[in-house]
Amino acid sequence: MATTLISGGTVVSATGRAAADVLVDGETVRALLQPGSTLLGADVAASVDRVIDATGKYVIPGGIDGHTHMQLPFGGTEASDTFETGTRAAAWGGTTTIIDYAVQTYGQRIQDGLAAWHEKAAGNCAIDYGFHQIVGDVTSESLLAMRGLPEEGVTSFKMFMAYPGVFYSDDAQILQAMQVSRETGMLTMMHAENGPAIDVLAQQLVDQGKTDPYFHGIARAWEMEEEATHRAIMLARLTGAPLYVVHMSAKQAVAQVAWARDQGQNVFGETCPQYLYLSLEEQLGSPGFEGAKWVCSTPLRSRAEGHQDAMWQALRTNDLQTVATDHCPFCMKDQKELGLGDFRKIPNGIGSVEHRMDLMYQGVVAGHITLERWVELTSTTPARMFGLYGTKGVIQPGADADIVVYDPAGHTSIGYDATHHMNMDHSAWEGFEIDGHVDTVLSRGKVIVDGNSYLGAKGDGRFLRRDLSQYLV
Amino acid sequence: MATTLISGGTVVSATGRAAADVLVDGETVRALLQPGSTLLGADVAASVDRVIDATGKYVIPGGIDGHTHMQLPFGGTEASDTFETGTRAAAWGGTTTIIDYAVQTYGQRIQDGLAAWHEKAAGNCAIDYGFHQIVGDVTSESLLAMRGLPEEGVTSFKMFMAYPGVFYSDDAQILQAMQVSRETGMLTMMHAENGPAIDVLAQQLVDQGKTDPYFHGIARAWEMEEEATHRAIMLARLTGAPLYVVHMSAKQAVAQVAWARDQGQNVFGETCPQYLYLSLEEQLGSPGFEGAKWVCSTPLRSRAEGHQDAMWQALRTNDLQTVATDHCPFCMKDQKELGLGDFRKIPNGIGSVEHRMDLMYQGVVAGHITLERWVELTSTTPARMFGLYGTKGVIQPGADADIVVYDPAGHTSIGYDATHHMNMDHSAWEGFEIDGHVDTVLSRGKVIVDGNSYLGAKGDGRFLRRDLSQYLV
Amino acid sequence: MATTLISGGTVVSATGRAAADVLVDGETVRALLQPGSTLLGADVAASVDRVIDATGKYVIPGGIDGHTHMQLPFGGTEASDTFETGTRAAAWGGTTTIIDYAVQTYGQRIQDGLAAWHEKAAGNCAIDYGFHQIVGDVTSESLLAMRGLPEEGVTSFKMFMAYPGVFYSDDAQILQAMQVSRETGMLTMMHAENGPAIDVLAQQLVDQGKTDPYFHGIARAWEMEEEATHRAIMLARLTGAPLYVVHMSAKQAVAQVAWARDQGQNVFGETCPQYLYLSLEEQLGSPGFEGAKWVCSTPLRSRAEGHQDAMWQALRTNDLQTVATDHCPFCMKDQKELGLGDFRKIPNGIGSVEHRMDLMYQGVVAGHITLERWVELTSTTPARMFGLYGTKGVIQPGADADIVVYDPAGHTSIGYDATHHMNMDHSAWEGFEIDGHVDTVLSRGKVIVDGNSYLGAKGDGRFLRRDLSQYLV
Amino acid sequence: MATTLISGGTVVSATGRAAADVLVDGETVRALLQPGSTLLGADVAASVDRVIDATGKYVIPGGIDGHTHMQLPFGGTEASDTFETGTRAAAWGGTTTIIDYAVQTYGQRIQDGLAAWHEKAAGNCAIDYGFHQIVGDVTSESLLAMRGLPEEGVTSFKMFMAYPGVFYSDDAQILQAMQVSRETGMLTMMHAENGPAIDVLAQQLVDQGKTDPYFHGIARAWEMEEEATHRAIMLARLTGAPLYVVHMSAKQAVAQVAWARDQGQNVFGETCPQYLYLSLEEQLGSPGFEGAKWVCSTPLRSRAEGHQDAMWQALRTNDLQTVATDHCPFCMKDQKELGLGDFRKIPNGIGSVEHRMDLMYQGVVAGHITLERWVELTSTTPARMFGLYGTKGVIQPGADADIVVYDPAGHTSIGYDATHHMNMDHSAWEGFEIDGHVDTVLSRGKVIVDGNSYLGAKGDGRFLRRDLSQYLV
Ligand SMILES: [Zn+2]
Ligand SMILES: [Zn+2]
Ligand SMILES: [Zn+2]
Ligand SMILES: [Zn+2]
Ligand SMILES: [Zn+2]
Ligand SMILES: [Zn+2]
Ligand SMILES: [Zn+2]
Ligand SMILES: [Zn+2]
Repeated sequence: MATTLISGGTVVSATGRAAADVLVDGETVRALLQPGSTLLGADVAASVDRVIDATGKYVIPGGIDGHTHMQLPFGGTEASDTFETGTRAAAWGGTTTIIDYAVQTYGQRIQDGLAAWHEKAAGNCAIDYGFHQIVGDVTSESLLAMRGLPEEGVTSFKMFMAYPGVFYSDDAQILQAMQVSRETGMLTMMHAENGPAIDVLAQQLVDQGKTDPYFHGIARAWEMEEEATHRAIMLARLTGAPLYVVHMSAKQAVAQVAWARDQGQNVFGETCPQYLYLSLEEQLGSPGFEGAKWVCSTPLRSRAEGHQDAMWQALRTNDLQTVATDHCPFCMKDQKELGLGDFRKIPNGIGSVEHRMDLMYQGVVAGHITLERWVELTSTTPARMFGLYGTKGVIQPGADADIVVYDPAGHTSIGYDATHHMNMDHSAWEGFEIDGHVDTVLSRGKVIVDGNSYLGAKGDGRFLRRDLSQYLV
Repeated sequence: MATTLISGGTVVSATGRAAADVLVDGETVRALLQPGSTLLGADVAASVDRVIDATGKYVIPGGIDGHTHMQLPFGGTEASDTFETGTRAAAWGGTTTIIDYAVQTYGQRIQDGLAAWHEKAAGNCAIDYGFHQIVGDVTSESLLAMRGLPEEGVTSFKMFMAYPGVFYSDDAQILQAMQVSRETGMLTMMHAENGPAIDVLAQQLVDQGKTDPYFHGIARAWEMEEEATHRAIMLARLTGAPLYVVHMSAKQAVAQVAWARDQGQNVFGETCPQYLYLSLEEQLGSPGFEGAKWVCSTPLRSRAEGHQDAMWQALRTNDLQTVATDHCPFCMKDQKELGLGDFRKIPNGIGSVEHRMDLMYQGVVAGHITLERWVELTSTTPARMFGLYGTKGVIQPGADADIVVYDPAGHTSIGYDATHHMNMDHSAWEGFEIDGHVDTVLSRGKVIVDGNSYLGAKGDGRFLRRDLSQYLV
Repeated sequence: MATTLISGGTVVSATGRAAADVLVDGETVRALLQPGSTLLGADVAASVDRVIDATGKYVIPGGIDGHTHMQLPFGGTEASDTFETGTRAAAWGGTTTIIDYAVQTYGQRIQDGLAAWHEKAAGNCAIDYGFHQIVGDVTSESLLAMRGLPEEGVTSFKMFMAYPGVFYSDDAQILQAMQVSRETGMLTMMHAENGPAIDVLAQQLVDQGKTDPYFHGIARAWEMEEEATHRAIMLARLTGAPLYVVHMSAKQAVAQVAWARDQGQNVFGETCPQYLYLSLEEQLGSPGFEGAKWVCSTPLRSRAEGHQDAMWQALRTNDLQTVATDHCPFCMKDQKELGLGDFRKIPNGIGSVEHRMDLMYQGVVAGHITLERWVELTSTTPARMFGLYGTKGVIQPGADADIVVYDPAGHTSIGYDATHHMNMDHSAWEGFEIDGHVDTVLSRGKVIVDGNSYLGAKGDGRFLRRDLSQYLV
Repeated sequence: MATTLISGGTVVSATGRAAADVLVDGETVRALLQPGSTLLGADVAASVDRVIDATGKYVIPGGIDGHTHMQLPFGGTEASDTFETGTRAAAWGGTTTIIDYAVQTYGQRIQDGLAAWHEKAAGNCAIDYGFHQIVGDVTSESLLAMRGLPEEGVTSFKMFMAYPGVFYSDDAQILQAMQVSRETGMLTMMHAENGPAIDVLAQQLVDQGKTDPYFHGIARAWEMEEEATHRAIMLARLTGAPLYVVHMSAKQAVAQVAWARDQGQNVFGETCPQYLYLSLEEQLGSPGFEGAKWVCSTPLRSRAEGHQDAMWQALRTNDLQTVATDHCPFCMKDQKELGLGDFRKIPNGIGSVEHRMDLMYQGVVAGHITLERWVELTSTTPARMFGLYGTKGVIQPGADADIVVYDPAGHTSIGYDATHHMNMDHSAWEGFEIDGHVDTVLSRGKVIVDGNSYLGAKGDGRFLRRDLSQYLV
């Protein structure tokens, strides 16, 4: 197979930087070399098939987005990105792995839910992909089926404390699933919002004629995120299950995660770029129906209450460990519009899979996080958390050559008519300017993005059989 | 210069493991290579001067002990290890860097204190060494002199809230030094115990005839470590100085560090093997004068109160970030014996510089920490914390070839007549058995320990000019 | 009507003591007088119908037991004390007011539930009584009916987070009821245990053959009391409802109450003598089926974990505000025995209404609480909490003459063949010795207990229409 | 002696209210009677010498101001109120007891310091007074002398962690004094600010030309109040001494008190009206030298940071237990003016002794605290805290007839040309309007304030020998 040398760049890891050349052989990183790359007399650069000049640039492990929903059926419609369009957009943005959520719906066998997702994804992805399993119906049969997931390379499952009648599990069900988590080592992932309480509030708001998107954020009060987070933590403590709370947005909920961690419990938290940059007042509270673009759950939080700053701080202090997107795109037309006159009917979701690496890099520029922490939050820790480390999340001999050359001197303008490859009729990030640029993206050694050209193909990506989490303490 | 290949081992970093060969060229790591080590057709193993077979073994960055006191004058005597004997013992144990404390005594110029330590160390060390600066006399002159330290490669200074009349600084002095820390970026290190209060308690105990070593631990109550830790944190918050609390042993003090960190403050904590394994009841409370062997400050804490378990937990939860030794050895004869009849006169200190890597590895065996955390606590984080990362603390191209080959199938018996190379007439770790063994130690590419042979020489080690801490958030 | 002078005693209030005579005229306290009782020339003692000599004794407001269940249908049987037998036993022990729980069962109208309880109690009680309303079925109809309760003199209602299928309300129901609480000012009372989770654990234990009473305490893990307490607090925060958590036994749950209170929330906690004195290991873990005597919910907690000490401390620090009994007696024969072979079928409850004042006084003797705190916890705060203050809970002009003369030089032996007036075939407090004695009990001016004679009659007690809580901050 | 009946009012205690008449005989409360006041046939109102009609008014125990400094030498001048003028002003405002601070200065015998204060006060006071003892010089001699204080009726002593060179004690001294506190039961009172650190900051500000009163508040940063509070708490924990922290203004410091209390420690906190109403930005930051009026220590805190709201909340939650004034008045002319050009030379102090009862009543009107809490904070708890309860702090038979008739329908305008009786050339409370009025004040049975007339005389007040604190848990 072809050999490639990425030369002259600064290789950034979770702990530091090195001036090093990266030698790729086929799909794999073969070596890290001192720059100059004469090795025992051999001129490496002269011997390889291709040299990528990374001088002045960062060479980082490809991004791992641990939370996406390609073509997810939700709210009477379906997320607008297919595995094809969504993973291609991810690649454009420097993400080389996604972990999507396979869904077991109520009444369905887990095996069948998982199989359906395999069918959607197989042969369509631009980059490698794995699955978490959503468990939407805890029964004695599904509890048994869950035990078979690790063998399928699916080592984590998600439950919902929200969405009664859809994905909701009650505490009795969660407890039993967590017992399986404890026994198998699978990670329990939790959408932590008190759905039954939220639904009462939402109904009352609608009854009062408060039907605009803004009230989505009012109904989904931070108190109910904090509460559910605490409840999940205590159920995890009782059972001994490791717990990963997805898409956290309320600072008080994060405080609960910090509290659990301070006591040595294996509890982890994920946030998303929208909770770092966007707010209840600004985006969700946009005039008229415009706010629908930013209807997602958990919702955008109040900037006046300081949630966004608190999320950045929690990323610094490691009270939150990962940044994913919860990518779940819907067009305004025909999709978000379903909720005209009733915010409850707006499909929940924001499309961000393309922009995560850029948006988080801007956090480095702004001084919120270090360059190393950027790599750690977006790639290394997700790899460790989800059992991919060694293959993914690090540039080292033997690892998949999923590599991004990122140019700190470049610039990226985000917007529907600017940088935008997701299958949506708008951008949730319109107007965001990034002081950096994804120059080159390698997926298992193949250059799939080169400047402004997409060189990859549908089907480049393979399914990843994941190990158990390597991140537990 | 000579080339060496460490082949077949598992390279362990702070975030994970890789099956990789390490190519050393002269003093430097030149490359990490996929095992097998044919690179672009070249048989690397065949091309190097020396091959070290690390099959089945861990290949880790050499240990960095961030807290030692070679030949420190203290309590009317002097720590019994010279830079020569102490660093050689360190090397035997897989530690390839120490950072020792240069002392400015009361009335002395900082420059002179530092120069004196350079003189003691230069040409005598087996491994590389750096200095922290103890500031024992804060005056307008010394505050000015402190600003010159980073240029000397000394980027951290320590103050004492204990030892009135010796090293003690009052809060007014600490505040001013921390302002310098804030402005220069130097790390403020703190011995956090309320000395004035402790000295009252100690005097009262002696007045009551309670003169045994055990009462050293009673006088130095955990409340006074907790208090001083909180005070240091608040002075750091006020000034914006980064703070590193040395040799922590009380769980309540660690809780203060955790509290500060949860709020995003740059506060760090170090503990030592003695606080993880030894206790007030068992060692310090040994019959007669035996306990003198374990008189150190902060003191060993009560196992019944759970401090040791809490320290291990804090290492797991990253509420503590580093493990150093506070190596400060004294012989029983003529030294510890000075305190016969008055525990206050027992020179404070334990010798551990040789055993830190082994003792912490045993924590891996016992399930207290992961293998990666072992490397992080003993090498990678100290390197980042003290401005050495890139050169030290990591195995990557361009780094100093400070490398330890550690055999998990080996065994190490610690004891005065077993493994013991420190210049002491006893071992504080007598009888400890380790399920692992330091097989080979390279210091800047030179094999200085090879199985049971010491191949290094006095003067191998060089002074390290350190950068500012790379660990601040 | 008749006049009585209680002379020579020490009147104890929640804040202190006074040497004062108490003049009772008919049902009411008419005056507090300096001892000696010559008032403006009049010899009061000579002018009254009766003088009670309280020299050397404490004169306290009659006890208020805010949590009883007379003749409650539960678990296929009925609590063994009728309003007649139970209130008479209460009187024997110095309690002159109970607040019992009227029950609305699933499918029933609240009004009908309340009426049924009025029927049980009317004309049968030895002492005054009020009702809390258990809301067992939240519907739009019952939410409306709740608003009428304050007019009926019922200003508090209880919900259950435990007992699915019996009293259980889900979070949507609790939220709506709390909104009524917020609007009307009624106090929300909560049985805070996560019932759905507990029922899973209980089923699993029974499936494993762990059917002894002890496993009742294992199934009802403290984590699930802590969790439900936190959840109730957050729902209360969201709605603005005042919250009173009944029968708390887990120290971690109390910590949640303390946390809420520290933030200024109107959250209160009640404990019971059983959680102060008895334990999982000792009583509930008695050999064979003996432990059934102490099956109650929340369960007795582990002494090794320190819950009992923590409850006493919380009473001192006012993290808990009241002590009630949760009096719910069942005989062993035919009642507790229902659970032979399956702890889940043991009727939940302990009989203590007679002994609360004595057991808490013993806490004074033991130094756990002050004499004033005794009065506050057992009478003054319950009166304020439940809208009775002024009439009850204090000895002042205009108050009901509910007065106990308590002899600190007396002694009380508790036991089935000793002091025991409850309708049970055993005593849960067998062998407890009290260094004090209830000498005389007045209920609205009438002496109903005089030394060892019961002078009262069925029907002495009247229904108390309560005001809203006077205790909110 | 003369008899007085206060009839028709609402007697307010710390726990509730009663419609009751109060019969005073000579200096003492003789009886509380049901309104109407016919007792056993006698028409009480007709039998007494004087009837005070309190219809529609509150009858409360006279205020107890636990923190005053009459004619205190400070900063080269002396507090401008003598015991005569200051206590008279207090009486005008409904305060019938003060506890002033006797001072032992450096090098002085405690006995001599106390004697000097007796001399200043004896025969000059309008109301009863007690003393706390300031211990300004801890030596073996003064530690011995402290043990004699309870016999002198002085059961509390204060130390300063601020003011090095004046009142400052170091931690060794504090520890030893707290040991005396532990042994004798005396209350340790603490001025908790880190003086050595603050003095550095103040010097630096002055060196930068920041000499305005505002910078007094900047130098005395909240971090240094929080720190000292924590330190005092830990020294108290170590020794077992009960601790009372005076004049708290920083919310973070109060959080430390709450933390200690949650763990059952006997730690108490006092705040003052200035910390509830006034702020760094508004008053201390007044243009030019105007802010000097509000220079006091601890300083006024930033409203933007929310300290004032937090103080009110802490009063509600009982994290703070008392409100005193720290009355220490200085005129602008010749006194405050000493600090023109250097805020450090402005005498520290505000005059408030006259207005505390009114200002706190306004907190009732504003809904910050209940009427009962008003009485508790200003009278009942100070009485219990400082060993006066029974005689002071409550209206009950046998108590001193220190009684205030307060009219909620009245109005009080505070200002130099309005209500102002303190010996100052300005009012720190200019323009404050109170929706209530002190109508009548009795001091030991004598009416000393009657509407707008002062009927008392110099020397009415007596020295109070205090018992040990009755408030410890
Ligand atoms: Zn979700
Ligand atoms: Zn999602
Ligand atoms: Zn030290
Ligand atoms: Zn040291
Ligand atoms: Zn219950
Ligand atoms: Zn109950
Ligand atoms: Zn002060
Ligand atoms: Zn003062």
